[in-house]
Amino acid sequence: MGEKVLLAYSGGLDTSCILKWLLDKGYEVICFMADVGQEEDFEVARAKALKIGASDVIIKDLKEDFVKNYIWPSIRMGLIYEERYLLGTSLARPCISVGLVEVAKAKGARYIAHGATGKGNDQVRFELSAYALYPEVKIIAPWRIEEFYRRFQGRSDLLNYAKENGIPVSATPKAPWSMDANIMHISYESGILEDPLTIAPDNLYQMTVNPTTFKPPHRLNIYFEKGLPTLVEDLQTRAKYSNPLAIIEHLNKLGSLFSIGRIDIVENRFVGLKSRGVYEAPGGTILFTAHQDLEIFSLDREVYRLKTFLREKMSDYVYNGFWFSPEAKFTRKCLEISQETVSGKVTVELITGSVRAIGREASNSLYNQELVSMDVHGNYSPSDASGFISINSLRLREHCRVYGSNF
Amino acid sequence: MGEKVLLAYSGGLDTSCILKWLLDKGYEVICFMADVGQEEDFEVARAKALKIGASDVIIKDLKEDFVKNYIWPSIRMGLIYEERYLLGTSLARPCISVGLVEVAKAKGARYIAHGATGKGNDQVRFELSAYALYPEVKIIAPWRIEEFYRRFQGRSDLLNYAKENGIPVSATPKAPWSMDANIMHISYESGILEDPLTIAPDNLYQMTVNPTTFKPPHRLNIYFEKGLPTLVEDLQTRAKYSNPLAIIEHLNKLGSLFSIGRIDIVENRFVGLKSRGVYEAPGGTILFTAHQDLEIFSLDREVYRLKTFLREKMSDYVYNGFWFSPEAKFTRKCLEISQETVSGKVTVELITGSVRAIGREASNSLYNQELVSMDVHGNYSPSDASGFISINSLRLREHCRVYGSNF
Amino acid sequence: MGEKVLLAYSGGLDTSCILKWLLDKGYEVICFMADVGQEEDFEVARAKALKIGASDVIIKDLKEDFVKNYIWPSIRMGLIYEERYLLGTSLARPCISVGLVEVAKAKGARYIAHGATGKGNDQVRFELSAYALYPEVKIIAPWRIEEFYRRFQGRSDLLNYAKENGIPVSATPKAPWSMDANIMHISYESGILEDPLTIAPDNLYQMTVNPTTFKPPHRLNIYFEKGLPTLVEDLQTRAKYSNPLAIIEHLNKLGSLFSIGRIDIVENRFVGLKSRGVYEAPGGTILFTAHQDLEIFSLDREVYRLKTFLREKMSDYVYNGFWFSPEAKFTRKCLEISQETVSGKVTVELITGSVRAIGREASNSLYNQELVSMDVHGNYSPSDASGFISINSLRLREHCRVYGSNF
Amino acid sequence: MGEKVLLAYSGGLDTSCILKWLLDKGYEVICFMADVGQEEDFEVARAKALKIGASDVIIKDLKEDFVKNYIWPSIRMGLIYEERYLLGTSLARPCISVGLVEVAKAKGARYIAHGATGKGNDQVRFELSAYALYPEVKIIAPWRIEEFYRRFQGRSDLLNYAKENGIPVSATPKAPWSMDANIMHISYESGILEDPLTIAPDNLYQMTVNPTTFKPPHRLNIYFEKGLPTLVEDLQTRAKYSNPLAIIEHLNKLGSLFSIGRIDIVENRFVGLKSRGVYEAPGGTILFTAHQDLEIFSLDREVYRLKTFLREKMSDYVYNGFWFSPEAKFTRKCLEISQETVSGKVTVELITGSVRAIGREASNSLYNQELVSMDVHGNYSPSDASGFISINSLRLREHCRVYGSNF
Repeated sequence: MGEKVLLAYSGGLDTSCILKWLLDKGYEVICFMADVGQEEDFEVARAKALKIGASDVIIKDLKEDFVKNYIWPSIRMGLIYEERYLLGTSLARPCISVGLVEVAKAKGARYIAHGATGKGNDQVRFELSAYALYPEVKIIAPWRIEEFYRRFQGRSDLLNYAKENGIPVSATPKAPWSMDANIMHISYESGILEDPLTIAPDNLYQMTVNPTTFKPPHRLNIYFEKGLPTLVEDLQTRAKYSNPLAIIEHLNKLGSLFSIGRIDIVENRFVGLKSRGVYEAPGGTILFTAHQDLEIFSLDREVYRLKTFLREKMSDYVYNGFWFSPEAKFTRKCLEISQETVSGKVTVELITGSVRAIGREASNSLYNQELVSMDVHGNYSPSDASGFISINSLRLREHCRVYGSNF
Repeated sequence: MGEKVLLAYSGGLDTSCILKWLLDKGYEVICFMADVGQEEDFEVARAKALKIGASDVIIKDLKEDFVKNYIWPSIRMGLIYEERYLLGTSLARPCISVGLVEVAKAKGARYIAHGATGKGNDQVRFELSAYALYPEVKIIAPWRIEEFYRRFQGRSDLLNYAKENGIPVSATPKAPWSMDANIMHISYESGILEDPLTIAPDNLYQMTVNPTTFKPPHRLNIYFEKGLPTLVEDLQTRAKYSNPLAIIEHLNKLGSLFSIGRIDIVENRFVGLKSRGVYEAPGGTILFTAHQDLEIFSLDREVYRLKTFLREKMSDYVYNGFWFSPEAKFTRKCLEISQETVSGKVTVELITGSVRAIGREASNSLYNQELVSMDVHGNYSPSDASGFISINSLRLREHCRVYGSNF
Repeated sequence: MGEKVLLAYSGGLDTSCILKWLLDKGYEVICFMADVGQEEDFEVARAKALKIGASDVIIKDLKEDFVKNYIWPSIRMGLIYEERYLLGTSLARPCISVGLVEVAKAKGARYIAHGATGKGNDQVRFELSAYALYPEVKIIAPWRIEEFYRRFQGRSDLLNYAKENGIPVSATPKAPWSMDANIMHISYESGILEDPLTIAPDNLYQMTVNPTTFKPPHRLNIYFEKGLPTLVEDLQTRAKYSNPLAIIEHLNKLGSLFSIGRIDIVENRFVGLKSRGVYEAPGGTILFTAHQDLEIFSLDREVYRLKTFLREKMSDYVYNGFWFSPEAKFTRKCLEISQETVSGKVTVELITGSVRAIGREASNSLYNQELVSMDVHGNYSPSDASGFISINSLRLREHCRVYGSNF
Repeated sequence: MGEKVLLAYSGGLDTSCILKWLLDKGYEVICFMADVGQEEDFEVARAKALKIGASDVIIKDLKEDFVKNYIWPSIRMGLIYEERYLLGTSLARPCISVGLVEVAKAKGARYIAHGATGKGNDQVRFELSAYALYPEVKIIAPWRIEEFYRRFQGRSDLLNYAKENGIPVSATPKAPWSMDANIMHISYESGILEDPLTIAPDNLYQMTVNPTTFKPPHRLNIYFEKGLPTLVEDLQTRAKYSNPLAIIEHLNKLGSLFSIGRIDIVENRFVGLKSRGVYEAPGGTILFTAHQDLEIFSLDREVYRLKTFLREKMSDYVYNGFWFSPEAKFTRKCLEISQETVSGKVTVELITGSVRAIGREASNSLYNQELVSMDVHGNYSPSDASGFISINSLRLREHCRVYGSNF
């Protein structure tokens, strides 16, 4: 019996062929499937893997773990990549990697294999996570092995190989793009999307509906404690959701109806390429928007700026696969400290295509309605502002003294 | 005849009372009005000022200057304050200040007066600009002068004073909030908006319509050269707009129909207060979105990150009133250099409530469709990624060696 | 009896005149003196204040507090202003302010007065600290009160006033500069130093000796735990010092002999002026150097970079008077977390004019002697570096593809 | 005849063996030597290479290029890595790479080979530079080729190979460390230095003398224009130096006598390792110190802070090998703009072990002696500072209102 490999198995054509190829190479292969909320018939996939020759198939339901330990912290930290992408796939990778490593250790597998391509981010995310959690692990990434990628130069090579080896192939014709789905989002890339001018067709979007009719605005109260979502109150139905999984599911459903959270972007991959991605993250977008509102409302101005710097760094770490790293650990702790005072509620309004905050309240609010009022002076002495401006202008006037009013 | 004061005059109750009060103090007062695109009957205002006693009224049409020298550079720099506010008022202030200073110098006025409050940002923006451009100027800010603000403790004191002094008062009842409008945006604040939980009523919005019916998506091509918008092509009407003023006006009109660019936020003022503002910036939001897309598409990843840092700084400078400052001058130059390669077009789609990029093309594109394709290797050797990941994991594995896999 | 004022009293001419002036104004004045390690006959000063009319004189020995709660944390955080200044005065101000506020509250004084000038940093540091700790306090800063500064336009006015009011004046002629001393440093400024080309005379330096003879190198081991100095071992004398006060005193003595820690700089004040300062901080410089060495040795590369960013921010906060502020509180916590692994020892060598690290050892070291050795491969596969470089060059080659090799 | 390889040849044992090994592999090998100021008998090396079998040996005197186009810009930008290292080797690498690429192109060589190790930074610096300047180049790095490094596992294997192949070997016994020298510095690493606790022996230092006698202080005026050194005036000898090469040579000589510019550090390599290095950079340290002083003296406070951020980034780019990269190109331009006003002179004093600025003067100075003087008010109104402090404290007082004086 050969060395044990734990394969991150999807049930699809690629990893089915990889499974067979690993078996041919003499490995014993255990398949691992993580349920992070994608639509998938796991039992069909299990049967398929066993049929191909997997010695075991482990299926883990990681949905709750994913929401509580990855999505929730990401919302709290306010992570967003290159101003737009909420990191749905990037967050799932370390979550799945923990599952992979746990099973690999439990089953005594020294190898982990995956079907991520050699140009993408996911290979980096899986492997950096695996090395950090299981430093002695060895990785098999067939799409980076010359023998493999020379043999399988396109989809037809995979289909032929499947046919030859009795690997069942889905009858549904493949969409001309690839997709990755989980409870937070669906991403679409490659195929016809590789031309950045090609407009994604309406039927691409699986998670949100195409807007075709007018929907009256819909309002929600979203509550946070120390930066984490704790309760969603639907102001139309009066229903309340407090379980993290229930919250994200409800917001996905609502956000879907309102076509919220679609982006179409070109992003910078860690390996140095630019790639085009289309994403849908309805519930995540609603939570991100509400949290952002409460945060700026709650935090001291300068703390907020420090936090923003750290958040930018953390977003890059997560995108690049460094969720488990000394720098991410440090940044996460700092960001957590920053959120100790971010508690309260935000009222958001969904209209087709967008969500925005329209009201908010904080448990401990630095917002001082009386102080800011134009009609009240309180302890604020307006004449102080004269000195404030005058001293602030000193540097400018000194600049003019030397260089003239030449800006 | 007293010292000459140039008063930034709005035609409204406040600055009309200030005009009279300055006259009472013995100053000769010239009024200055800047047309930055707000709805205003300037000739009615002129007559009013002259009637109250202004020795002259200067009205400058700054719309084109505002668009070309403030809005356009801001779009190019990607300025946005605290993640959401496109700085419509902040950008208008230095533009108006240049007008004020030019007229003050031409008329030999050593004093500039304004009606901005003592708790706000505008006082700072006007005065820092004025000091930078006219270092020997003296500022009169009545709302910071104890005698003045003790006398006028509320609107009724102003109304009484107006009545006593024959100052005409608008018959339209005042909205329970204040607003500031220009060609880029309208801002609303104070009054009932001071309670951050109060939801802004539908009739507040003047620049964008409330969504009540379904509108089919509307597409535009927006072209940029070196980061500046140069052409807008309406893909529905096939109309083209290349004059900056025409571009912003068309985008405002379209954006208005689609209710684009509304935000409701609490922001951090320079003086240390938090304040609530509601803003509408339909055209600016469309341009910002398109530019952001093209920029990330065009720029090298690391240059983009440097640019983003500088953009954050510049946004704070502009918000805080430092448009004319050594740091803004330096940052502007750097950001301009960053934009030398940001040329191309972006297709955007407007749906009710939102605008997003859906396609793009750059004159010189770092995007390499062939290289990124999953089906082509080209010069990319996938096995290199193994070394890349391995070396990147070295730091993580060293961390684990010492501290364990404890992240 | 008038309102109670607590005066930060130095025993010198300025604050003695201020004391008398406050009494003339009808205040009851309590004097407060903080012993932060400056050379001062506190009892003579007490007698002088009582003679002038102070109702009480409170002298607090804050040396230990200053070392443990301000200098030690500053070393741990690595604070340095504008690359050179170790913040000796800036750190003392919040320490003294805590003393002032405690006494003011205990004595029921609603006013705090100080003799800091209206152009300097110290006024800001005292007052921001006081407002943060005692928000309802009122500050009297005579050097900012027109009546006061018009009356006392120069030293001779103070001398005359002293004479008229029987205030004893030191017989020693005043040096043509001012100085501020504490256990961490002495700063010198103003007077002849105001010309930035004037070279500070040898007799200015009070804390370090002028180098005139050769001294053989002197070595020390300095131990840190979680970033704080815990033990100094003098490798010449074998003496050990573990009490913070004893450590700084010994290092000051040694550093003094080796003329270590002198700087002559022009710095940027918070109020917008540039000012010239000459500083001596012998012991602080030794500790800073040792800590810096251990820190870069101990910390993960990316954590170190984050830490450096935060340290820069914190240095500005402290210099500008924001030791007690939300942003400093947050930053301090983050920096503390970063130091959890900074434990070990550093061997430093003192030679005339400088100190440098020459050896180091960490409790938990990310330094891997075997791994870095040119003669050992261990788990490091050199061929991985090829892939690492190749992938890193991808962005550069893409740039060349579009723009040519034009850098 | 085989493919042409251009080998970066040093004349030492490693690259001589590589030369022979490449010949054995069937390549035609041209040797390239760059004179960047290291002590080397180039003609002896030429003869040796030809004797081993090189088809040609090209020796380029790059000293002037190195000083003007790498060291001078680095001084202007203020580059320093991890707070201490002036980047002497990092700067030489791109300079040498330009030479390599020019010769490779001229000679029609498609391959460049070098003797840098597989764990170090130099491999990255050479190769990234080469790829940026000559994207189609192929690199041969024998120390990363398994066949090569398995064969040559230590120095004795190299010595045996040399003996077998008639390669002359220096009779001088090798120091138990390696060194890299150029006109800016000497670096020492590996061997006995790999233990970070081992103190470098006195006889290691080749560029600066060990301090053994007292030397009276020595003063210099150093002049800069737009950030670049233009003139050094020796205040002892009255000699003047204006040619860049003459300046650095004189400062190296002087700095050497005063043992200036020695550091002993552990640094973070790009590949993720920590390594220990000892460096001497006497002239560079003097120039860095003088420039730093003039810069902070000359620049607006906020521009200086932006500049510092960019300088930190650039230091990392240069250390990591990205001298020729889009980000370095952009940063260099920005830093150049920042230096437009950095002109003037600095008086520095050398004493044994250190250099410091003691006086300075700028062509256009933002330093305002009159304004900063404690005895003059000028246009500065001290009472403005009250408003300035009061407004700055607002945020702190608001924090206390909500959270108490708990910092």
